[in-house]
Amino acid sequence: MDPRWLDVAVEQARAGLASGGIPIGAALIGPDGAVLGRGYNRRVQDDDPSAHGETAAFRDAGRQRDYRDTTMVTTLSPCWYCSGLVRQFGIGAVIVGEARTFHGGHDWLVEHGVRVTVLDDERCIELMSTFIAERPELWNEDIGVTG
Amino acid sequence: MDPRWLDVAVEQARAGLASGGIPIGAALIGPDGAVLGRGYNRRVQDDDPSAHGETAAFRDAGRQRDYRDTTMVTTLSPCWYCSGLVRQFGIGAVIVGEARTFHGGHDWLVEHGVRVTVLDDERCIELMSTFIAERPELWNEDIGVTG
Repeated sequence: MDPRWLDVAVEQARAGLASGGIPIGAALIGPDGAVLGRGYNRRVQDDDPSAHGETAAFRDAGRQRDYRDTTMVTTLSPCWYCSGLVRQFGIGAVIVGEARTFHGGHDWLVEHGVRVTVLDDERCIELMSTFIAERPELWNEDIGVTG
Repeated sequence: MDPRWLDVAVEQARAGLASGGIPIGAALIGPDGAVLGRGYNRRVQDDDPSAHGETAAFRDAGRQRDYRDTTMVTTLSPCWYCSGLVRQFGIGAVIVGEARTFHGGHDWLVEHGVRVTVLDDERCIELMSTFIAERPELWNEDIGVTG
């Protein structure tokens, strides 16, 4: 993998934070390494609970006929919603910036043949751990955790 | 369940078909039986591969703090992407119009405690079987099946 791929996702996460939202970003990378789509969580900005980082990047990439040789790069372990997206569309690989602050469905993706790389990126950990400490209610809302 | 709930989803699926798209519709029903959100697959209409019937209805409902007592009603068995949505947000129940033309993740949802009711609604079967026969390439694109 090209380390610049995660940089794109981190840049998205920071843009999400700067615009008042939840700092999770993602990018969908094509077979040739080009960025097909990028995005960040837009729950707050758009009042849209369906716009997670990964789904926003997937949407931004537009209609693609074949995802087998694409890679989803995300700053955080994908939740079940985003893991389901990866499985359904046959996205071949996932790069996870960190899985310390949240453990989603990436093990399940491995079981189903997705090539998953879990990093332990300090920028990603810092973004989420600070955010979760400051806005626990917003984070819980984003992952469907009820009080 | 109130049979009118499925009527709302079928109406959405028909609206999707009438506007040139894939005939899958859904509605998110609140604890009191009110429709919180409704939507249909908008891949074609919006060039948006992330807008499945269920995700469109979820989005339309806006930010909700608790999904435990909500019901997702969909004309077709939910794919992994939409099943992941249901699991992540803790949507308590799913009503499936039909699972003959496509078998998604609803069994997995049962395993994870979601109350799932699978109907065998003739309107839903007719909509999808006709569509799949007429536009197989578009249907395959929508569920990530490569040729």
